[in-house]
Amino acid sequence: MRMICVYQEFLTGAHRAQIQNTAEAQGFVPRFFTLDQFEEAKHCLQSCEVLYAHSADLLREAPASLKWYCCSYAGVDPYCKDPGLFANPDCLLTNSSCYGVTIAEHVVMVLLMLLRRMPEYEEVVRNRGWSNQLPIRSIRDNAFTILGTGDIGANVAERLRGMGASRITGLSRSGRAQEAFDEVLPVSQLDQVLPRTRNLIMALPGTAETAHILNGARLALLPQGAYVVNVGRGTAIEQEPLAEALNAGRLGGAALDVMDPEPLPQDHPLWTAKNLILTPHVSGNMTLGYTCDRNVEMFCRDLENYAAGRPLRGLIDRARGY
Amino acid sequence: MRMICVYQEFLTGAHRAQIQNTAEAQGFVPRFFTLDQFEEAKHCLQSCEVLYAHSADLLREAPASLKWYCCSYAGVDPYCKDPGLFANPDCLLTNSSCYGVTIAEHVVMVLLMLLRRMPEYEEVVRNRGWSNQLPIRSIRDNAFTILGTGDIGANVAERLRGMGASRITGLSRSGRAQEAFDEVLPVSQLDQVLPRTRNLIMALPGTAETAHILNGARLALLPQGAYVVNVGRGTAIEQEPLAEALNAGRLGGAALDVMDPEPLPQDHPLWTAKNLILTPHVSGNMTLGYTCDRNVEMFCRDLENYAAGRPLRGLIDRARGY
Repeated sequence: MRMICVYQEFLTGAHRAQIQNTAEAQGFVPRFFTLDQFEEAKHCLQSCEVLYAHSADLLREAPASLKWYCCSYAGVDPYCKDPGLFANPDCLLTNSSCYGVTIAEHVVMVLLMLLRRMPEYEEVVRNRGWSNQLPIRSIRDNAFTILGTGDIGANVAERLRGMGASRITGLSRSGRAQEAFDEVLPVSQLDQVLPRTRNLIMALPGTAETAHILNGARLALLPQGAYVVNVGRGTAIEQEPLAEALNAGRLGGAALDVMDPEPLPQDHPLWTAKNLILTPHVSGNMTLGYTCDRNVEMFCRDLENYAAGRPLRGLIDRARGY
Repeated sequence: MRMICVYQEFLTGAHRAQIQNTAEAQGFVPRFFTLDQFEEAKHCLQSCEVLYAHSADLLREAPASLKWYCCSYAGVDPYCKDPGLFANPDCLLTNSSCYGVTIAEHVVMVLLMLLRRMPEYEEVVRNRGWSNQLPIRSIRDNAFTILGTGDIGANVAERLRGMGASRITGLSRSGRAQEAFDEVLPVSQLDQVLPRTRNLIMALPGTAETAHILNGARLALLPQGAYVVNVGRGTAIEQEPLAEALNAGRLGGAALDVMDPEPLPQDHPLWTAKNLILTPHVSGNMTLGYTCDRNVEMFCRDLENYAAGRPLRGLIDRARGY
């Protein structure tokens, strides 16, 4: 009996039925556990070929016979950095890139908050004051650079285009053209693109290549008053020079949904940096129906691929971390 | 010599040239004044047929020979409520409905802030805390009711549709169908629409008909957890029951860019209402190039209409206030 261990909190009855039906059609038997059933899941996992979860603790308990770990999150850096997590060195790892829509809505929100000077206006209002004279900017007729052109970057690009952005430049490893972007350049051209980037959106996975990709030297390449948004991984930005550039007014503002480490230490300079919108890693989560539906849908499609011996769509190169 | 008094701060050299050329082609001579030249403008105005400005103080100084006052703002309620402002009772009044794009960007921003629980997350972050478990909502697959289907309402509808809204209901005086909306109903059906409205956006002019249109009884018709956004006029909402509904958790949140009066008195209950995003009337202003361009463009087109004896596109019925 080929078994699947499903260890998830977000599943509805319909989701379970969908997984059950797909699994049975492919000759598998799924077992469902919620997050309060760790011991039961761990016990069952010993005889499972597939694990659908987001838990390093549970993965660590998996036997060498586990052949595929489908992670229900998009960011799989914790699983790639620690090879000891996998008893089976050849265990397949897939991620779930189903968060593009909700994260893109977050990006549109914080971009507008920066362009429209909300951190400053919120300060005015907290003091019961009145001032409406700050010059604002707009998405319309404005140009944007998106570092990372995956599910998130493409969803951001579509929304900015819909709101009248004048030019959307993507940066990816390949530099391959993509529909939602006016141009896509290889990330090797980052230093050439930054000096003309007034609005930078970062949506990169956490890999060795992306660590501190926006370091102090590159932050200095951005024009005076530029805005930076990061929804990928906190490791992508060198945080101390960012805080300094914000406090000095060199940058117009920033919005970070991801930091390094999370949570930030209580004495970290980012807590008090000027015109910085911090959110506690909330841009993607499992509270939206369409995100959950897509997550289950992607697992089921890859389960069919797995059963048929076809390549998995969400496959991660564990050495590359991406 | 037919003269035009232009009393504006936002005009660029190109705008002045555009007005100059249009005026001359129609047999008019424009005179330009900035806001620090009130006395000079007042003196000139005595021999002018047209005034392009946004100043009740200057309008009050106009002679009975003034035939057309083009207001560069959208909201003309101050000019309609006080008939004594016009020495010429038949003076034409036009407004400038060029703020739809920037106000729609404001609406998208505050809607996302409400749906994604930003007031609560901002409180967490202000205390250097960490929590990312609040259930959020999305624009995608969500339904919206827009009270007021003019320039602002239509621009909001277009953006919500572009972000995947499932249904956009407009309410207008006529109930006439409009492209950006899934349906437009007459405002007389408001009481039927409110109980199924989880997201209400208000973009109405300030008239006798719209005063307290969302009174306490109608606020009570909204479902538990509904959101309310107002970018029209503060008079449209009865503010005390709104504050009570927010504090009681009956409403999920609200965002007001307009209040009554503005600024709010220091002891007003709205300053401390729960999940309320207050902004000091900033959704439309003259700091965006495209807004200014459109303002001048609309004046020039109506100047051609005026010279040719055609109806003015921005004409306001002063008795109706709209």
